[in-house]
Amino acid sequence: MENDGKKKCIVRFEPSGLGITVPVGTVLLDAAHKAGIYLNSICGGDGYCGKCKVTVDKGQFQSRPTTLLTPDEIRQNVVLACQTKVLSDMRLTVPKSHALETSQILMDTDAHRFSELAGDVRAGIFKFDPLVRKVFVEMSPPTVHDHTADHERLYLAIRRQIDAPIMQTGFRILQRLSGLLQNSNYEATVTIGRRGRTTEVIEIEPGDRRKRNFAVAVDLGTTTVVAHLVDLTDAATADKEATYNSQINFGEDYIRRIIYAEENDAFDEMQNRIVQDVNSLIVTLAARQKVDLQEITTVICAGNTAMIHFLLNLDPTRIRREPYVASAGFVPPIRAAEAGIQINKRGLLYCLPSVAAYVGSDIVAGVLATRIFTKNGVYLFADIGTNGEVVLGNRDWLVCASSSAGPAFEGSGVKHGMRAGAGAIERMTILEDGSVELKTVADMPAVGICGSGLLDTLAELFTNGIIDRTGRFRDNTQPGLTQAEEGWQFQLAPEHDGHHEIAITQADIDNLVRSKAGVFAAIKVLMESTQTKPADLEAVYLAGGFGNFLNVRQAVTIGMLPDVPMEKIQFVGNTSIAGAKTVLLSRNALETAERIAEGMTYLDLMSHPGYMDEFTRANFLPHTDLSLFPSVTESLMHRA
Amino acid sequence: MENDGKKKCIVRFEPSGLGITVPVGTVLLDAAHKAGIYLNSICGGDGYCGKCKVTVDKGQFQSRPTTLLTPDEIRQNVVLACQTKVLSDMRLTVPKSHALETSQILMDTDAHRFSELAGDVRAGIFKFDPLVRKVFVEMSPPTVHDHTADHERLYLAIRRQIDAPIMQTGFRILQRLSGLLQNSNYEATVTIGRRGRTTEVIEIEPGDRRKRNFAVAVDLGTTTVVAHLVDLTDAATADKEATYNSQINFGEDYIRRIIYAEENDAFDEMQNRIVQDVNSLIVTLAARQKVDLQEITTVICAGNTAMIHFLLNLDPTRIRREPYVASAGFVPPIRAAEAGIQINKRGLLYCLPSVAAYVGSDIVAGVLATRIFTKNGVYLFADIGTNGEVVLGNRDWLVCASSSAGPAFEGSGVKHGMRAGAGAIERMTILEDGSVELKTVADMPAVGICGSGLLDTLAELFTNGIIDRTGRFRDNTQPGLTQAEEGWQFQLAPEHDGHHEIAITQADIDNLVRSKAGVFAAIKVLMESTQTKPADLEAVYLAGGFGNFLNVRQAVTIGMLPDVPMEKIQFVGNTSIAGAKTVLLSRNALETAERIAEGMTYLDLMSHPGYMDEFTRANFLPHTDLSLFPSVTESLMHRA
Repeated sequence: MENDGKKKCIVRFEPSGLGITVPVGTVLLDAAHKAGIYLNSICGGDGYCGKCKVTVDKGQFQSRPTTLLTPDEIRQNVVLACQTKVLSDMRLTVPKSHALETSQILMDTDAHRFSELAGDVRAGIFKFDPLVRKVFVEMSPPTVHDHTADHERLYLAIRRQIDAPIMQTGFRILQRLSGLLQNSNYEATVTIGRRGRTTEVIEIEPGDRRKRNFAVAVDLGTTTVVAHLVDLTDAATADKEATYNSQINFGEDYIRRIIYAEENDAFDEMQNRIVQDVNSLIVTLAARQKVDLQEITTVICAGNTAMIHFLLNLDPTRIRREPYVASAGFVPPIRAAEAGIQINKRGLLYCLPSVAAYVGSDIVAGVLATRIFTKNGVYLFADIGTNGEVVLGNRDWLVCASSSAGPAFEGSGVKHGMRAGAGAIERMTILEDGSVELKTVADMPAVGICGSGLLDTLAELFTNGIIDRTGRFRDNTQPGLTQAEEGWQFQLAPEHDGHHEIAITQADIDNLVRSKAGVFAAIKVLMESTQTKPADLEAVYLAGGFGNFLNVRQAVTIGMLPDVPMEKIQFVGNTSIAGAKTVLLSRNALETAERIAEGMTYLDLMSHPGYMDEFTRANFLPHTDLSLFPSVTESLMHRA
Repeated sequence: MENDGKKKCIVRFEPSGLGITVPVGTVLLDAAHKAGIYLNSICGGDGYCGKCKVTVDKGQFQSRPTTLLTPDEIRQNVVLACQTKVLSDMRLTVPKSHALETSQILMDTDAHRFSELAGDVRAGIFKFDPLVRKVFVEMSPPTVHDHTADHERLYLAIRRQIDAPIMQTGFRILQRLSGLLQNSNYEATVTIGRRGRTTEVIEIEPGDRRKRNFAVAVDLGTTTVVAHLVDLTDAATADKEATYNSQINFGEDYIRRIIYAEENDAFDEMQNRIVQDVNSLIVTLAARQKVDLQEITTVICAGNTAMIHFLLNLDPTRIRREPYVASAGFVPPIRAAEAGIQINKRGLLYCLPSVAAYVGSDIVAGVLATRIFTKNGVYLFADIGTNGEVVLGNRDWLVCASSSAGPAFEGSGVKHGMRAGAGAIERMTILEDGSVELKTVADMPAVGICGSGLLDTLAELFTNGIIDRTGRFRDNTQPGLTQAEEGWQFQLAPEHDGHHEIAITQADIDNLVRSKAGVFAAIKVLMESTQTKPADLEAVYLAGGFGNFLNVRQAVTIGMLPDVPMEKIQFVGNTSIAGAKTVLLSRNALETAERIAEGMTYLDLMSHPGYMDEFTRANFLPHTDLSLFPSVTESLMHRA
């Protein structure tokens, strides 16, 4: 095929059928992204994670040699999309387990299960006082005897209804004000936003429009972006939607994305991606609920510090580099349009405050949502995602840390790991006869293992004696163990009906153990430095995208969480969005979030003298020191 | 001459030599304005004020018939610029007395004479605390042990130096912040502005730039725009400049300009004119003092309510129409660039608050500058301009009113009236032998009469018995009286050396009497309604553009001001700019100005039952009721 450098090729991806026209020579990973197909790409396209496999059904291509494909795969025309260039029209098949198809994202049902979190506002912890509200003002029109100017007349009318000692009005509103009031017989609806202690008139409409005031709360995850449409008139969540973070093509974790952006001067592109993700969620929610975009007056975001920086195009480079600082932890509210977010053109964008470069506003939201900051006794909060952030404390003090143990429980670095989408193994039990019982998301044929399934798998392999305390396969005669190219592996599901085998390898187990060890070591350091004993813990809250049926006991069994009674451990789901919604509905909650972020002590584990020791000691199941896990030890002895 | 509708003509104006190329058919008044020549145009180009006379030296033109030109003038090719169209290249001469040549504007020296007003800030009435200031912050760069984000690090550093509980940062500053701090080794100069009780980081520069922080205070007069360049580091006035308000082509008073703008949808044009005037003053001051426009961080404006509305393009139409209200009396600070003012692109524009549609922020500035609001006893403040605004009060109460008696003392409606430019008669005395002694501005040959000269003339004609108490010429045998086309007139200067005769007509005198009657009636109404007697007045402050050598006694002689001892009357010059500068230099003064504007009671004279009676009674010299002017009566009797 002639490559004249100008020729265009049509590339079509199955099973979605999505296609794109690209110039000859385009890298397949880029073509996939342009077509709206999100492929796993942990390494950011560097060609060493082997996650972006696709099968070429038809067409010419050129691939760089790689050791990440088996001879079988090469025979079947499987290629790494990041290492392959398009030379002609092509048709490709994206393996189901690897495709991040937006339609498959599992909506987090935890919001229902933990609805008391979002209910805080109505339950009286916080006053219902949304960050942006609409106030209907009826003024008597000016007369020769009542000549107060329109601007001051409006302020007086607003202050009759709300406490707003410090008010601002945008210049454009001011210019429209008199005409609007005269045409509406001095009956108008004012949209009032808060910028710190300042109240801003952000919009004015003729007549009574109070009934139509919406906001969107967003959890800016490194992997998934979740948005809830909230009706600000009654605090109800009107609808929810999620999408994959389309920055994922630039790296699975945010450190890699920062590096990519630095090397390719792609900060604008990085912002565009995340802003477009947020916009597409907003448009979807608005269309479905018949809400005009102009009626959405607020967007509130929680997320890790890097994601907030990407969203606002703040310099994130020192997040990954000494001295590991953010450009801003407390981001002032800005006009959403300034960041490119398409709601009411004068609507506000709020970001929850973060604590440090590695403890973001998602964690502050979590502390808010779990109410730790109101409690006596000591509480532990752990959010397991790309990093594992942990918080310990109560109403008097809060300490936090972030373990950079890697996102194994999110499925990265695990051969058949995946997120909690349809077909993900979310529960796994090894029965007495050695056979495996599985539960998959949406009861679809198994295509991979999500976080809760990985937790189950590690715990079941350990408690059934298939792996030893170091995580090694004890011997090869155990039922379920099979030999693969990488070595021995434990098979969860055989190949069937065109679906590939699902198994967990020694490397997978090592990754998971390291990951849980990182989390536990962080918890241990926090507990040591605050002289907290496991018995002191009133409750342990586990947050993260594990799936919907997390067996929290297993988190103790593998030694990720301290050995406390089962009833003290609670899986709290997506606390990032729960906290964001709480703030959205109460100015007082925002102030509380600010106090939480300001008051929380951050321990830098990398420079902490005891952390590496703790990490090494935690690289056992459940731990080197069995006395730390008495209930696990007893259970194992009972079993043995 | 062929008029093909596309031909361009060169029009040149003498004696300035300024020229302009315009299409055939252009109205001469418009051509003059485009050339930078400001002609008087009281009627806004409607053709009935007869002020825009020019002489055609050469060229073809087409004029509408008018009764405002004498046969002699028509013979000499004098035309009304507003009624004349250009048909070919032309050369014109603008009569000296009518041209508003910018270079001739007299700078107000009152600022020197009343320097204690501007000195308030240093004298301790107000704390020196400029609205916009520069703070030099030295921060220790972040380390792994001190990981406060840059944005919060900056806030901490600022708060170590100034009290700023509520702070805001613009999004663009936030985006630049980290890079700038890293490149400047965390030493930076922050420009801090105030928006109400909120402190805003409006600019950040590397290193120490404190020494370069300038502001411009502007008095937005209907006729003249005055600007002072202030060095905010030491509160010194670095330079001053003035220009004619170029809206003057659309009408001499602001009511006429509002009508013009409404009829011609010319609000944008009206804004452009005044903004360009302000910009040209700023550019001139900056160039002369070698100040970079980026170093000017603040503009503060005082002016009547209509001018502030024009400046910001707020709807001014109900200022002239029932219910006579402003769009905004308290204008929040905005970014100067939003209004088109070219200083630092993030610099702020402040407008002083106004009281009502006819009592603007220039009057609030006057109350502030004269310190009335701090005093015991009762004080009177009168600002004589296009309208005559009067304020009565003290530290406990303030009442104000505006008389719409017309701008006769500014020279409008007076045949040879003019502003206090070079050649204006500013003092006039009738000697015992009946001859007239004149003093002109800059000792140039007399070309007209400015405010102080008109005041002198009226008083001298009265005290010398040339006019009677109704203002009528007593008889035609008096020395100095000559017969002109309009009837009898009093000649101040004969025609000489190519300069026309200067005289005052019966119509002029009637206008002046009506004008002073309006002011006195307003004062009387305020005094009556507050039960203030002349003896209660501690002082009378007279402000306005009279000129530099106002004989305040004459204002009592003609019955414009109440009959109080001479030493109680003080001419205070341009208090609008003095007050604006005070506010510029002290946030506390701004708050005081706001309290003044808020607390002042406005009396609407049009709807006041007693005003018309008082006006009628004041239409005598000095007044119908001589008992109100005992010292004047005594002096006249002594003379007689």
